Amino acid sequence: MALRGKFISFEGVEGVGKSTQVARFRAFLEARGNAVEFVREPGGTELGEDVRKILKFADYGDRMSAEAEALLFSAARAQLVREKLLPALEAGVCIVADRFTDSSVAYQGAGRGLGMEKIAAMNEFATGGLVPDFTVLLDLDPEIGFARTRFRAGESAEGKTDRMETFPREFYERVRAAYLQLAERDPQRFWVADASLSPDEIFEKICIEYERRFA
Amino acid sequence: MALRGKFISFEGVEGVGKSTQVARFRAFLEARGNAVEFVREPGGTELGEDVRKILKFADYGDRMSAEAEALLFSAARAQLVREKLLPALEAGVCIVADRFTDSSVAYQGAGRGLGMEKIAAMNEFATGGLVPDFTVLLDLDPEIGFARTRFRAGESAEGKTDRMETFPREFYERVRAAYLQLAERDPQRFWVADASLSPDEIFEKICIEYERRFA
Repeated sequence: MALRGKFISFEGVEGVGKSTQVARFRAFLEARGNAVEFVREPGGTELGEDVRKILKFADYGDRMSAEAEALLFSAARAQLVREKLLPALEAGVCIVADRFTDSSVAYQGAGRGLGMEKIAAMNEFATGGLVPDFTVLLDLDPEIGFARTRFRAGESAEGKTDRMETFPREFYERVRAAYLQLAERDPQRFWVADASLSPDEIFEKICIEYERRFA
Repeated sequence: MALRGKFISFEGVEGVGKSTQVARFRAFLEARGNAVEFVREPGGTELGEDVRKILKFADYGDRMSAEAEALLFSAARAQLVREKLLPALEAGVCIVADRFTDSSVAYQGAGRGLGMEKIAAMNEFATGGLVPDFTVLLDLDPEIGFARTRFRAGESAEGKTDRMETFPREFYERVRAAYLQLAERDPQRFWVADASLSPDEIFEKICIEYERRFA
């Protein structure tokens, strides 16, 4: 069956203002008359939310291996694609995703050093080859993003500090470089936004770029 | 670091009497003066036990995709290898495993039709290349094994019927054929036991074969 809905993902390291842009872009698409579903990774299905608890708030501490982490992210994604994304896209619904495959390739492949190609292959298996039509990469010096994140951090709503937000700066440098490399390799799909601009400016540019590509 | 302990896995479809042989073989190794650790899959670590709950007793029903299932098994295995198996084997402890990588290749790769090579590649990533020194395949016509399993089935200790035990016969036929194919490809590692024999006969043959290979 043809995928009639558009699939748009947002990527970037912590502190780039991704949540804000995702929410505004979703409203933008709806205002244009589209049915829109929002998904966040890991999660978006019952299985995915269970995996999310293991990944983000379980007390294994440093004992969780990088390989197990990458496989758990892929498992949640495999379920999301089949249970939610494909049926929605086939029905003409647009998907706005807060992270997708590129996050795994950048974070686990490059950041954690597991190898970008290996993680890409695992995700090809997990997604059955589904890729977004349009990926917005919010790019920012990790120094600035990290400062923004620390300002908001501390205890999360679930009562435990998010395990993903305790990595050192070098990790985020590798993730950023990997994201930029992915964007450079696939300019048809990616669009890189300068996330040091104001939220209003970024949002306007994203909408203009989307119109230019898909109007 | 060298792996000084022996790593022995037991494989086979439901109803072949695997648990019995695993327990007896473990006692056999201990009686010979070995330190032995037993692991079951999925599980064996805190993360693995959490994944086990999702795989075996969560209420997603038929909605769990075969790809998500395969990735979850691999995630539990990746953690098991790094947190428990490698440190134990390096310390000279023997590992007796109730299922390992071959289960995924046979069940997900062949049984579920995801492809034996794809599942093998994913597990190579998950295990970092760790394979057992000796794998006992308990082989039996699924018709017989299935009848034995139904006799014991119903409600499990956790109060829900085990999701893995509701597959049709054709599924187990594919799994059995895949196991036999794996054994044929790697006779250095595998040994196939005729599980239609009595438990005492099977156990004796396993011990003789182990002595022959590793004494």
